[in-house]
Amino acid sequence: MSQQCGNSRIAGCSFSVHPMTDQFVEYIKGSLKETDTSNVWMDTDEVTTTVRGEIEHVFDVTRAVFLRIAKTGVHTAFNATYSIGCPGDSAGDQYTGDIGEPANGLHEVKQHTSAKFSLYPMGGGDYMEVIYREIDRMKEKGIDVSAVHYATKLSGDVNDTFHGLEDVFRETERSGSSHTVMTVTMSANSPSQKEEQS
Amino acid sequence: MSQQCGNSRIAGCSFSVHPMTDQFVEYIKGSLKETDTSNVWMDTDEVTTTVRGEIEHVFDVTRAVFLRIAKTGVHTAFNATYSIGCPGDSAGDQYTGDIGEPANGLHEVKQHTSAKFSLYPMGGGDYMEVIYREIDRMKEKGIDVSAVHYATKLSGDVNDTFHGLEDVFRETERSGSSHTVMTVTMSANSPSQKEEQS
Repeated sequence: MSQQCGNSRIAGCSFSVHPMTDQFVEYIKGSLKETDTSNVWMDTDEVTTTVRGEIEHVFDVTRAVFLRIAKTGVHTAFNATYSIGCPGDSAGDQYTGDIGEPANGLHEVKQHTSAKFSLYPMGGGDYMEVIYREIDRMKEKGIDVSAVHYATKLSGDVNDTFHGLEDVFRETERSGSSHTVMTVTMSANSPSQKEEQS
Repeated sequence: MSQQCGNSRIAGCSFSVHPMTDQFVEYIKGSLKETDTSNVWMDTDEVTTTVRGEIEHVFDVTRAVFLRIAKTGVHTAFNATYSIGCPGDSAGDQYTGDIGEPANGLHEVKQHTSAKFSLYPMGGGDYMEVIYREIDRMKEKGIDVSAVHYATKLSGDVNDTFHGLEDVFRETERSGSSHTVMTVTMSANSPSQKEEQS
């Protein structure tokens, strides 16, 4: 089977969400059930959940799964690897029906998060200028940006953060990187953070 | 400041551990406190903990922090990005005292885990043969290995898994990759897994 290219390149994300509570099963299952996944292929095993589809849908679904849990106030961690163009990837396991608009809403929800992300453009492309430009756009939205070991740290609103990350990922892909990977670690309602803010 | 090379290349890991319980703070703080970190530089913020030092110490510390929590039986997730040779890295924030042997023990603890790892050798090197060889060695130790989207899945003993991952990372570095990144997601005592095993 030849690899798909161009507009039909499949994006995907392997992610996990961790509500730090005895009721973690109810939180995770509840959030996955409430999330509109009709535009993606999705599979959950005991380590991560994998979603595959168009970039906008992959980000919409992962944002919604995390935000539905975080907005309850429980301490929640989120870890994700977004990928597109992996040379070993197949054309299988993707949604092939009618593709609609991202349907998960929640854009009005205000929720603070601290995050670290790393971008690995592994297939060339003129991406450094792209990354700096997108990081500047995040700062304009009010997200605090700082450099840490092995990552860039972001602090701000969950929706703004996800949209910023989606833009970085999409624009890196557009810049010509044939294989782009982005890892994200996110935390909401952390007691460590509350101490810092108080 | 010029970058350090050769034997003094600094390895590091940005990681987080998630005990899925209301008592998560006690579990995390307790494990960090009990772990011997005298051979590494370590810093914890509200998103991740970062350790820096020699490869063997970085793996010893991260393994111990995870295993001390997992062996209590609580459902625990672990996420880590191991890195060496990052071009943007500095020579700072490393332990400069006497370097001893990895001191965290726990090698007799038997604990099952399911994990997914991805290797990103971003600085050349002849690594494909190395990866296949190291994966074969993991299989010989009794670890189940399978291909999943965006990662390789491992299922087996925690100590065997960490040692296998350390070998893959170290041998990829040795093969000539000037910048190597490895991401690991690990889960212990998952209720999903208990269902599968019963």
